[in-house]
Amino acid sequence: MNDSFASSDDRRSGDRLKHLQKAVFPEALILALGGELPGVECAYETWGTLNAEASNAVLVCHAISGDSHAAQHDADDDPGWWDELIGPGPDFAIDTEKFFVVCSNVLGGCRGTTGPGTIDPATGDPYGADFPAITVADMVAVQTRLADHLGITQWRAVVGGSLGGHQALTWATRHPERVKTCMAIATSPRLTSQALAFDIIARNAIQTDPHFHGGQYYDQPTQPNTGLAIARMLGHITYLSSEAMDAKFDPDRHDPRKLATSFEERFSVGSYLAHQGTKFTQRFDANSYVAISMALDLFDLGRTRETLIETFRGSLCDYLITSFSSDWLFTPQQSRDIVNALTALDLPVTYAEITSAAGHDAFLLPDEISQYGPLVAAKLGHTNDQPPALRHDDDMVLDLIPEGSSVLDLGCGSGRLLATLKQRGHEHLVGVEVAQPKIIEAAARGLDIIDYDLNRGLPAFTDNQFDFVILSATLQAVANVEQLFDEMLRVGRRVIVSFPNFAYKALREDYVERGRSPKATGEYDHEWYNTPNRRFPSIADVEDLCRDKGATIHDAVYLDSQTNQRIPATPDGDPNLDADTAVLVISR
Amino acid sequence: MNDSFASSDDRRSGDRLKHLQKAVFPEALILALGGELPGVECAYETWGTLNAEASNAVLVCHAISGDSHAAQHDADDDPGWWDELIGPGPDFAIDTEKFFVVCSNVLGGCRGTTGPGTIDPATGDPYGADFPAITVADMVAVQTRLADHLGITQWRAVVGGSLGGHQALTWATRHPERVKTCMAIATSPRLTSQALAFDIIARNAIQTDPHFHGGQYYDQPTQPNTGLAIARMLGHITYLSSEAMDAKFDPDRHDPRKLATSFEERFSVGSYLAHQGTKFTQRFDANSYVAISMALDLFDLGRTRETLIETFRGSLCDYLITSFSSDWLFTPQQSRDIVNALTALDLPVTYAEITSAAGHDAFLLPDEISQYGPLVAAKLGHTNDQPPALRHDDDMVLDLIPEGSSVLDLGCGSGRLLATLKQRGHEHLVGVEVAQPKIIEAAARGLDIIDYDLNRGLPAFTDNQFDFVILSATLQAVANVEQLFDEMLRVGRRVIVSFPNFAYKALREDYVERGRSPKATGEYDHEWYNTPNRRFPSIADVEDLCRDKGATIHDAVYLDSQTNQRIPATPDGDPNLDADTAVLVISR
Repeated sequence: MNDSFASSDDRRSGDRLKHLQKAVFPEALILALGGELPGVECAYETWGTLNAEASNAVLVCHAISGDSHAAQHDADDDPGWWDELIGPGPDFAIDTEKFFVVCSNVLGGCRGTTGPGTIDPATGDPYGADFPAITVADMVAVQTRLADHLGITQWRAVVGGSLGGHQALTWATRHPERVKTCMAIATSPRLTSQALAFDIIARNAIQTDPHFHGGQYYDQPTQPNTGLAIARMLGHITYLSSEAMDAKFDPDRHDPRKLATSFEERFSVGSYLAHQGTKFTQRFDANSYVAISMALDLFDLGRTRETLIETFRGSLCDYLITSFSSDWLFTPQQSRDIVNALTALDLPVTYAEITSAAGHDAFLLPDEISQYGPLVAAKLGHTNDQPPALRHDDDMVLDLIPEGSSVLDLGCGSGRLLATLKQRGHEHLVGVEVAQPKIIEAAARGLDIIDYDLNRGLPAFTDNQFDFVILSATLQAVANVEQLFDEMLRVGRRVIVSFPNFAYKALREDYVERGRSPKATGEYDHEWYNTPNRRFPSIADVEDLCRDKGATIHDAVYLDSQTNQRIPATPDGDPNLDADTAVLVISR
Repeated sequence: MNDSFASSDDRRSGDRLKHLQKAVFPEALILALGGELPGVECAYETWGTLNAEASNAVLVCHAISGDSHAAQHDADDDPGWWDELIGPGPDFAIDTEKFFVVCSNVLGGCRGTTGPGTIDPATGDPYGADFPAITVADMVAVQTRLADHLGITQWRAVVGGSLGGHQALTWATRHPERVKTCMAIATSPRLTSQALAFDIIARNAIQTDPHFHGGQYYDQPTQPNTGLAIARMLGHITYLSSEAMDAKFDPDRHDPRKLATSFEERFSVGSYLAHQGTKFTQRFDANSYVAISMALDLFDLGRTRETLIETFRGSLCDYLITSFSSDWLFTPQQSRDIVNALTALDLPVTYAEITSAAGHDAFLLPDEISQYGPLVAAKLGHTNDQPPALRHDDDMVLDLIPEGSSVLDLGCGSGRLLATLKQRGHEHLVGVEVAQPKIIEAAARGLDIIDYDLNRGLPAFTDNQFDFVILSATLQAVANVEQLFDEMLRVGRRVIVSFPNFAYKALREDYVERGRSPKATGEYDHEWYNTPNRRFPSIADVEDLCRDKGATIHDAVYLDSQTNQRIPATPDGDPNLDADTAVLVISR
């Protein structure tokens, strides 16, 4: 097979029936939109062993065209779609030696669970177009029956990507007591209008296929495979970034692979789409595609911040939200919208936007799994409990925080301060950081870290949400200082700002005696032309700004880190000259 | 009609036949891919009057689904698709009182010019599937016949957006002597793989429509309208940005308009797509769509910088290239690729990336036309010839530039220096600027301005391309100073850097006596927390960097602008203390 034809989907073919289990639930299922099924069957697979307390069960939820075969069961087994995430031993984020992993085919699917292709007991024929309209909530309702059947009262975690993320979020909001951790990857609160448009055109292609026969095609000699293939081709556009498509197809743009299909093969990308579209018809049912994509389109946790907050109110679990920078189907901003609602409710959440050129498919790819896998592992308790090495000014900051206070640390880096506070017994701790390696390192300490650019302000947080907001050694890198001061004073009852003093005597000497832009050890140890810093205030400057902002300075600690001496405030000392570091405690 | 259904396309219906002219060219047309047409007809419209020298003719080229009706001919006429750009009087960028404007339906089209629906004289039936494969070059070949027919040896300008831009670029590269100015708007050197994928799926939808009959459907009772409508729906996704779609459809997502179509209307965006798709079938021919979209997909000026440069080598005209920030079909980067090839060849070019949320459709919208219209007008000679007001340090810079030198001005603002040099008779002048209002102001002076972020380096320019590269009062805003120094020294035989001195005595006083971050009039008249500046070098710092970079300082002028006195260099003076502005002339 031509390399450019490889896709994550290629791993999802073949016979996995030997590991497929089936649960039959004969009670009628009343659906969210008013329909009813006289009973449902649920096909699922499991990995690992449920412990005696039934406390180690992880539910994995699949995306629109996935199925229950999330991972290989053994070396002879077909590959699974999340093989790099799920497997035996500590190399896997979801370690099947520790966890009992369950993955079921969704309601409406065509891989064993009740769907439009299932025989309707009332007629003896497949449901076809009579299959009632379903929602993600109905998919989850079937999964609750499965959980009951398996004796699982509470999932240790519900994990899913894309539509699987929608299922995880539905568990967390509709069955709060049954989920300990919700991990929603590459997902969204609802679809953008653009994403809806793709699904609508896909359904139009299927439903106007002359072989669709209003959905009653199962006894026909020909199935609506042309429409289904076109729907699948459209899906593939949305799964890849434009950059990824060019990397995959541009080198041999005019050298398409020859296939036996009725579709155009003039360009390499065309033969790829023809291949994917045609192959899909061999394993998927058009009615299932219509039913599941409509459930996806109807999924809606809320359009505004207020409605999203209402949706998540009452949720009890811990969250991991992950997005991918080049995902334009379920954008990072949509994940941020979820995170902002969770933080407003003080729900524990870690959020990372993983840098990737792969687009939506990123959540299935090994490179990206190696990035977000540690976040999944940390949420499942696989944390780094080494005490962090502290910086020279950290103790000054830590000493100012009373026992038990809640803390928001802005620009938290790898979580030094928060990890120390956690070891001291503080419970409500949140970190904000923008550098991906630091986010992953901090999250691995079991901290709640949010990937967040401070230059956006702090819209995720509510008034007086924290006892303390910390801005430690970060002020000098902030573009919009005034907005950030206003926001910190709004969100924290007290704000601690630690910063290097740009009017420290050694820096003044550089400037006055040598006529050179000041330069010193620590935060200012850069040349004028390559410093990442963009703000160069003195202690007096920052204190002026506090006063201008109507903030009260409650406490101030000044340090000369060169001599490790505290410098008294004026009139007994001149910290603006003699201290290279200051820590202020302010409030409005 | 529901407001959300309005689109630029709605203006393109109705009867315009009264202004349609037709030229018949009976000679055989040999096509670029080897096919042949026994002769062609070309439908076109004109506005204004050709002058005696035939020097005022402007060719306007339409996009994939457009036609010759670019503008209203009079108040009773149907609206045209570029009404805000083309019309009588100086309010219009293309003033039909000054210019003779021509717009023809493209080869392969279905609005009067020869296309698949035309009768093949050999058979007496429409060409249908026997219509030979065409390219953009063939469309232009028909336009050359039209130009000859109208007595136009050289177009004052060829102007087009999207596929129309491809035609303009083809004129400029294949018929260099026949184009004075090429204006390519919202276009690209070739399609991305993603854009190709959309077109391929669209053609698949048409060609697998059971009513397509291999393209021989003209005598059938039913046309392949389902496939054509689906193709058009796909097009509409690519014409809008995701942001624009949400703005248009999200407020009433669940309140679709009721239509009489066979397509899904569950969501407002769905009924919009159904409306647009269905309407399109009433005015467009499926075979034309297939033929023209394939020509679009085969258009290819070159994949690499080297091949692009080869394509444009030999071109003689002046260029305007314009892109739109939210256009993801033909991205700003693709326009930049064209611009980078043109600048490497020293061809005159103005490039602007217009900030817009509208997506690809932006080039047809009034708000965006009001932004790029002045650029079009300037390229047609409608310029602002007022002498610019100079800044205090401009004369110092201008005095250093010998008569006739070529100049690249980085961060040129509204073009003060370049406009002055132009008035002094300099010819090879290029400005680089990132602020859109300044780009438009500078271009209105008749200058060649390139929208360009200096932090990308200067890849558009070649070694020693200019006698002088100027960086005037811009150094303090540059993030990657070292790279920019290297690049300036590569591109210019001499580099002039003018900058404010951060070690000027008044600033030192602030710092030393008051312990405050230095602040002064001019470039440094900002607070530490809101200055747009991010680099704060002294004269000594910059001179150090020049030496570190192996550059020679040939000349230096130091000014105290407070007293308007020149400060002599050391040992006679101390400019690092006494000058607030420096101008250095350096080279490697």
